[in-house]
Amino acid sequence: MTATDLPDEAPGRDAPPDLGDIDAEAFRAAAHDVVDVMADYLARIEEFAVFPPIEPGSIAPLFPASAPEEPEPLADILADYRRLVEPNATHWQHPGFMAYFPTTASAAGILGEMLTAAIGQNTMLWRTSPIGTELETVVVSWLRQGLGLPDAFDGLLTDTASTSSLIALGAAREAAGLEASALGLAARPELGQPRVYASTEAHSSIEKAAMTLGLGRAGVVRIAADDEYRMRVDALIEAIAADRGARRRPIAIVATIGTTSSTAVDPIYAIADVASAEGLWLHVDAAYAGPAALLPEKRPLFEGWERADSIVVNPHKWLWAPLDASLLLTRRMADLRAAFSLVPEYLRTLDRSAPVRDVNEYTPQLGRRFRALKLWLMLRWFGLEGLRRRLRQHIEQAAAFAGWVDDNPDWERLAPAPFSTVCFRFRPRALAGRESEPEVAARLDDLNARIIDGVNRTGEIFLNHTRLRDRFTIRVALGQLRTEDRHVARAWELLRREAARLAS
Amino acid sequence: MTATDLPDEAPGRDAPPDLGDIDAEAFRAAAHDVVDVMADYLARIEEFAVFPPIEPGSIAPLFPASAPEEPEPLADILADYRRLVEPNATHWQHPGFMAYFPTTASAAGILGEMLTAAIGQNTMLWRTSPIGTELETVVVSWLRQGLGLPDAFDGLLTDTASTSSLIALGAAREAAGLEASALGLAARPELGQPRVYASTEAHSSIEKAAMTLGLGRAGVVRIAADDEYRMRVDALIEAIAADRGARRRPIAIVATIGTTSSTAVDPIYAIADVASAEGLWLHVDAAYAGPAALLPEKRPLFEGWERADSIVVNPHKWLWAPLDASLLLTRRMADLRAAFSLVPEYLRTLDRSAPVRDVNEYTPQLGRRFRALKLWLMLRWFGLEGLRRRLRQHIEQAAAFAGWVDDNPDWERLAPAPFSTVCFRFRPRALAGRESEPEVAARLDDLNARIIDGVNRTGEIFLNHTRLRDRFTIRVALGQLRTEDRHVARAWELLRREAARLAS
Repeated sequence: MTATDLPDEAPGRDAPPDLGDIDAEAFRAAAHDVVDVMADYLARIEEFAVFPPIEPGSIAPLFPASAPEEPEPLADILADYRRLVEPNATHWQHPGFMAYFPTTASAAGILGEMLTAAIGQNTMLWRTSPIGTELETVVVSWLRQGLGLPDAFDGLLTDTASTSSLIALGAAREAAGLEASALGLAARPELGQPRVYASTEAHSSIEKAAMTLGLGRAGVVRIAADDEYRMRVDALIEAIAADRGARRRPIAIVATIGTTSSTAVDPIYAIADVASAEGLWLHVDAAYAGPAALLPEKRPLFEGWERADSIVVNPHKWLWAPLDASLLLTRRMADLRAAFSLVPEYLRTLDRSAPVRDVNEYTPQLGRRFRALKLWLMLRWFGLEGLRRRLRQHIEQAAAFAGWVDDNPDWERLAPAPFSTVCFRFRPRALAGRESEPEVAARLDDLNARIIDGVNRTGEIFLNHTRLRDRFTIRVALGQLRTEDRHVARAWELLRREAARLAS
Repeated sequence: MTATDLPDEAPGRDAPPDLGDIDAEAFRAAAHDVVDVMADYLARIEEFAVFPPIEPGSIAPLFPASAPEEPEPLADILADYRRLVEPNATHWQHPGFMAYFPTTASAAGILGEMLTAAIGQNTMLWRTSPIGTELETVVVSWLRQGLGLPDAFDGLLTDTASTSSLIALGAAREAAGLEASALGLAARPELGQPRVYASTEAHSSIEKAAMTLGLGRAGVVRIAADDEYRMRVDALIEAIAADRGARRRPIAIVATIGTTSSTAVDPIYAIADVASAEGLWLHVDAAYAGPAALLPEKRPLFEGWERADSIVVNPHKWLWAPLDASLLLTRRMADLRAAFSLVPEYLRTLDRSAPVRDVNEYTPQLGRRFRALKLWLMLRWFGLEGLRRRLRQHIEQAAAFAGWVDDNPDWERLAPAPFSTVCFRFRPRALAGRESEPEVAARLDDLNARIIDGVNRTGEIFLNHTRLRDRFTIRVALGQLRTEDRHVARAWELLRREAARLAS
């Protein structure tokens, strides 16, 4: 039964009162209606085109130009939700979503968000949410242990990896003695321009954090990568030496486990040696691949990350939490606090004598959602073994796909696939070996762009691209919880069909 | 019926499958169970102490030290939710919550969050959520019109006012020609240290933004306030002149409509004159009070804000949206983009020819929740007139409370109450006129701290304090959607009871 089937006289659900809010029983009825809309959506998800065949600017005009003056019935709003919202979404929950890094709103995660909305916590202070503050320490510890990191790591939850990495670099800026939080970066030019080192394959969020923090894009030194898209440690050492020689001020290295384009793994242990020798903050971006550390057989890829000063892992990527949930682990909570703490009078806790952790002292934002709740629910719902089984399934799906590419002489894999993402392109036999000719290179780029576009237009599968060594590269990013083996096979089938159509 | 009453054999709801996710029908059943937990909570909300009588550190030990290895039944998780989570929350949804600025999770807002969780959008790009991107422009326009601002204002939604103000100041930093996003703030010391002006009563988020942006706490010049806690324009003009004389670089003024301590209103029009004459970015922080601009009779308090470069208004405060939802309006989207845009290859849109708005180009974060959905639902559910009726009710409640204080010779009001917040203290007749004696001042501070503590320990009402002109000040912040007149009367009754008990 959906809201639109309800009799008009159903009490409370269609007529908000004149003041205050509807009572709990009217809310109960309305929320049951909404659950049916949610479940219907998930039941029908494969009826939608993953990426809808619409043009930019075509949706806003479907809505009234101004807000209504008087209340409207929920049934009307839900009918419009089905008519205008659902068909114009990119369906991240569709099993054919294999673009970017997928974010699954798992059933358990959605249930967690529902409870989060109703209990309505702001976890900025212990006092404004004792459970929000303390359950966060519980969940951070549960995840840390699962990932195999020592208890020297404490941490917190943020909205996104962008914020987690910004916090880490903000703390690094402070730990380097720049006194940026107190005096500002323009106050002491004699200290030299602060510099952060990250590979050419590091995520844009690192550069974005540098922009926000006043380090500037020029403050991020891009270190060359090797043939497998891993940071070159020799180049890192040279870059640091060059900057020291030029009286610039190295403050941090960002290493990546699972780069965005190709999921490459930087040589963390060797980079940690450099960080240690140079006295630099080491931040490890494992936003996507971090959950694979739950698997003992994948731990070797993470070797050395336990030496980091800070690590980011996003439960809203490969752990199936709905947006948003990013985990920032760090050995150096005091440095985070030095960078971000401000306690005005109205945020002081006077009525408790024990020391409190007020998490906003570690973050750029004051207000904070109760993100620990959904993670607690999810960790119990799946169990660590349940998480491991699913991670292994996605890794096996990716390995199978990589095998199909490798076995087909008209296709070419463009990077190792250590996790759940495969990078490749169509390169018909006739063109093999001629990629250095500019016209062949351009033709391959064009062919592959048209293949991906053709596949996406079927509505069954949604892929995106990147460039690896300046070659247009198709990415198949698995890890969506609802993707079954048949969807992976279908993606490969559609890719070959499009390639054949274009080649003919 | 709740989950704990369900028969063990209920299919699907207690046993997640070994791989993938539960199917839509099992989700439907589980979500209906969760709705009952949510509605039960709201039905029983007044049975909880608003601020629970617990000590810091007492909650985390109630949870297991490690995550479970195997899945646990939802019924067990929900039972623990009721047993461990609900009683240890600070109940922001309790009608007696009158601390900080309340954040109501209205029924409509909760329904919106439920749909948001299930449709699972990431609105970072148009391509990753066409509806998320375009509905955001619709809702921003609806709110802008409701607030009476000209269509020169465009805007976007962020998580919190902290982020909205950070974006505004980041754009101001860029607009001032510092090239901070490209080169970093340490690169061009000859331009002078950047300075932002805000009153002594401005919110801590302004100073926090300056810390994050590399301007430093020293980059925020605190301008003295007048007797009613409004920025003194003469002091502002002097401060700017002094900084120019000292070769520092003024970049922005932050004016507040509804300061956090006392909800004072800076003289916006006069400040806009200064900003205009000096060529400075004017950011208006109306995070709390902004919604009052929906009321024609309150518009005079906002006069001049239409001249601002940027304005922040938080729907998750006095518009009853669940955390998080902050509205950033600006005339200068291009400056935001100059400060925050980065487009790596994997975020390029190749398959649409019309220009797209990719909102992440205007924000420090990449990933973005679909916040427009709940606001769209709420604006239709309440209608603008429904919002106005409720805002007026809270303003009337505050006026009544202020009147009770004013009429009682043992109490003293400490600031005007133009919106829904009243600042006051107990000052027994016997001590009136002797506040300049240090021991009397200390005694009044102590008495009022003990009064607020006594009231909070009843569990019926939750208040917090601030300091105004160095006097301990009790704040009653109304605006919670579930607060009825009887709760306001009860707050006053409890305050007087505590005062009488302590005075005797």
